Amino acid sequence: MTSKTLNALATRTPRELRQLIRRGDYTGHTSGLGQRHLQANIVILQRSWADEFLRFCVLNPRSCPLLDVTEPGSPYFEKLGSDVDVRSDVPRYRIHRRGQPYQEVTDIGEYWEADFVAFAIGCSFSFEQALLDAGIRMRHIDMGRNVAMYRTSIDTIPAGRLAGKMVVSMRPMKAVDAVRAIEITSRFPMTHGAPVHIGDPTLIGINDLQAPDFGDPVPIAEDEIPLFWACGVTPQSVIAEASPELCITHAPGHMLVSDKLYGEL
Amino acid sequence: MTSKTLNALATRTPRELRQLIRRGDYTGHTSGLGQRHLQANIVILQRSWADEFLRFCVLNPRSCPLLDVTEPGSPYFEKLGSDVDVRSDVPRYRIHRRGQPYQEVTDIGEYWEADFVAFAIGCSFSFEQALLDAGIRMRHIDMGRNVAMYRTSIDTIPAGRLAGKMVVSMRPMKAVDAVRAIEITSRFPMTHGAPVHIGDPTLIGINDLQAPDFGDPVPIAEDEIPLFWACGVTPQSVIAEASPELCITHAPGHMLVSDKLYGEL
Repeated sequence: MTSKTLNALATRTPRELRQLIRRGDYTGHTSGLGQRHLQANIVILQRSWADEFLRFCVLNPRSCPLLDVTEPGSPYFEKLGSDVDVRSDVPRYRIHRRGQPYQEVTDIGEYWEADFVAFAIGCSFSFEQALLDAGIRMRHIDMGRNVAMYRTSIDTIPAGRLAGKMVVSMRPMKAVDAVRAIEITSRFPMTHGAPVHIGDPTLIGINDLQAPDFGDPVPIAEDEIPLFWACGVTPQSVIAEASPELCITHAPGHMLVSDKLYGEL
Repeated sequence: MTSKTLNALATRTPRELRQLIRRGDYTGHTSGLGQRHLQANIVILQRSWADEFLRFCVLNPRSCPLLDVTEPGSPYFEKLGSDVDVRSDVPRYRIHRRGQPYQEVTDIGEYWEADFVAFAIGCSFSFEQALLDAGIRMRHIDMGRNVAMYRTSIDTIPAGRLAGKMVVSMRPMKAVDAVRAIEITSRFPMTHGAPVHIGDPTLIGINDLQAPDFGDPVPIAEDEIPLFWACGVTPQSVIAEASPELCITHAPGHMLVSDKLYGEL
C-alpha cells in the first residue's frame, strides 16, 4: 500500500470504505481512515456465550463500552449505520478456537452461524483523534509505534464464566496536557472515557513500563506522568482465558468503521 | 460562636445571612454557610488601579475568575443578587496601605470613596463543595485545617503595573479521585476550573510541600498525587507587590456570599 493510495483511502466516507473492504479491495489497518467516524473492536460469539459477554460489557463499561450488539443470528449492526454487515465489512478477522488465535481471514461469510451474536466495542483510535484535534501529541504516534498496553492488578467485575484483570493502554504526558486529556476523554464514555489510573504504575500492578504486555514501549521523560486508560484488549484477554469453543474478532488495528461520530452515541 | 449557633446560621439563605452580617450580628468566617451558593473573594481598588486590575483578571482567568465588577463608585454587585452591598455585606474586611495589611474592620461605609471599584472573584469553597458532593474527601477538611497554598514559578500574564507569580492551592488525592476531581472542577471555570498542575511539585517551583507559603501543611500518602489549582490569593499577592496606596479585601475565610449557584454564572 503506497502512501498515495492511503491518502486516497483517507478521503473515502465510511460507507465507501466499507464497500471497498466488502469487495476485498482493501484488507489493511484502519488507523486514520473513515473521516473521524467511530471505529469499533469486534467480538463475535455463539449464543451460549453471548449473554454472559453482554453482561460483562454492561458491568465493565470502561473496558468494554458497547456501541452496538446484533440480534442473535443477524449480521447487521443497526445502530452503527445503514447496511453494516459484520461478515464482510471488517478488513481482517481473527478466528480463535478454545481461546487461541487459529486463523486470519478477510471475510467470515462461510463461517457465519445462525446463533452468532456480534458486539461492537468502542476503540481508542477515536479518542486519540479528539486529543490530536486539541493539539495534544502522543509519543507512540510521533514515533510511529503501537500504543503500549499492560495487564494490571485491577479486577474486572465477573459475569458467569468471564472474569479476569483489566488491560490498560498508557500514554505519557506533561501535567498540563494530562489535565486536558482527562477533561477531553471524560466526555467520550463510548471510547473508554477518562483514565482509570494516573501516576505510579506499581499501584496497579505494572512493574516495568518499558516491558508492555502488548504493543510497543515508548520512552517517558522526567517531567511526564503516565496516564492509563482501560483498553479494548481487556475483553479479548478475558475471553481467551474463558476459552470458548469459537470466537471471532477483528485482527489488531483492523477495525470496523461506523457511520457515527463521537457525539452521536 | 457555639456549634448550635453555626448550625442555625447554616440554614439561612444567602440574603438572610447578608442581612445578619450587614447589621453586624455575624462577623465570622463563611465556610459551609450560604446553602451552597457561590462565595466570592473581594478586591476593592481606586479607579487609578481598577482598569489595570480588570485587565489582569481577564488575562488570568484561572487565578482570577471574575464573577462581577461594580460600576465605578457603585457599591452594588448587580450580577450576584439583589441588594448586594460590598460596603457592609462581607463579615470582615482587611484594609491594605501600600501593599501592607493595615487594619481589619467589619464595615467599610466610612472608608468608601466615589471612585472605588469592587471586584468579586470566584473562590475554592464552592468547588470543594462540588467535590464533597461527589464523595471526594479532602485531607485539609478532614483534619480541620486551612488548605496548603504555595507561591510557584508560573508567571501570570502582566497587566500594566500588575505582575507576578501564580499562587496555587494543593490537595493530595488517590489517582481515581484525582481523575474525577479534574473532571468535576473543569466544569466550573468560575471557581478556578481544572488544576494548573498535577504531580511533581518541583516542576512549578515548589521545593517542599510540607512548607506552604500560606495555610497549613497536610501529609501526603505514598499512593497519592498532589493536585494544584490556581488560587484566589494570586491577585492579593500581585496587588501587594504593586503596592497601591489603598486596597480593601475580605479577611481570609470571610467571603461575600452571593445569591448564585455554580451553574448560574
